[in-house]
Amino acid sequence: MTLEQELKEIIRDVADFPKEGIIFKDLTPVLLYPDLTRKVIDALANAIEDKPDAIAAIESRGFWFGTLLAQKLNVPFIPLRKKGKLPGQTESIHYDLEYGKATIEIHTGHVMKGWKVIVHDDLLATGGTAIAAAQLLEAQGASIHSFSFLVNLTFLGAGAHFQKEYPAVPLTSLVNF
Amino acid sequence: MTLEQELKEIIRDVADFPKEGIIFKDLTPVLLYPDLTRKVIDALANAIEDKPDAIAAIESRGFWFGTLLAQKLNVPFIPLRKKGKLPGQTESIHYDLEYGKATIEIHTGHVMKGWKVIVHDDLLATGGTAIAAAQLLEAQGASIHSFSFLVNLTFLGAGAHFQKEYPAVPLTSLVNF
Repeated sequence: MTLEQELKEIIRDVADFPKEGIIFKDLTPVLLYPDLTRKVIDALANAIEDKPDAIAAIESRGFWFGTLLAQKLNVPFIPLRKKGKLPGQTESIHYDLEYGKATIEIHTGHVMKGWKVIVHDDLLATGGTAIAAAQLLEAQGASIHSFSFLVNLTFLGAGAHFQKEYPAVPLTSLVNF
Repeated sequence: MTLEQELKEIIRDVADFPKEGIIFKDLTPVLLYPDLTRKVIDALANAIEDKPDAIAAIESRGFWFGTLLAQKLNVPFIPLRKKGKLPGQTESIHYDLEYGKATIEIHTGHVMKGWKVIVHDDLLATGGTAIAAAQLLEAQGASIHSFSFLVNLTFLGAGAHFQKEYPAVPLTSLVNF
């Protein structure tokens, strides 16, 4: 069985979450299996060709595998958090969601100019948050090494969004729905 | 330099966060140093005498080191999240904070009866959330293996709280303020 098949058996569909009509892909069962978690991290790490300078991951599900991937690659980990959650001086980016707006923040001075940074989250839906994360990192003087996800909900069409905004940046996902 | 000294140099005081008069201990700089992060995880793992069955960590800062510790010990990782964040069937516990109330949730069926579970968070303040987490795990049929924190703000007196509720359960912290 391939890793993708194994993950598809473990990832759980939850109907009507977070709102009616949406079938949510619940990745928490993956974390119940330490060997599978290790395989996931190995696969995400193996997809990377040249070593990044850091990994930035998006609150809070991105933290689950983000710190593991940073340790595996032996690089700094940068948490990107929702508005008001990071103490001290931060930079923000506001962006549009399907319904409404959102804001994510990064600590000022934690990413060095010129760093090549991986943007990580557990799941890629429309891509709005990951692209905002990339723009926030670029505003700090970093460049985007790659995008890294466990799951890509390809039917939501984030691919076209990335093709427009970051055509030259690699995108990894282990499972495609 | 001991690990505690090293961490005390890296952990950053942020005044008036999350509200006026509070000096917040910001642990994000630890994550910028992968070698230090590894030492932290090794120290948390070395403090454990008998292997637990799982680690439960509290959203969202508990996720940073929680999944690393679970991988290090090769055990399942259970995220405890704020109300409404976990998809599917959950169990909740409501508890009192210094000002107001809070709720944390766990997925039903992810913790097995009889499991000995570590409760992990990055920082121990008054202990209210960690003790609620322990009670939530016990309500699932688990027992508490130990409590594990990077930082203990001992001046807030959580020790007495644990002494009353969990006198026989070990508590580890790497840095005490």
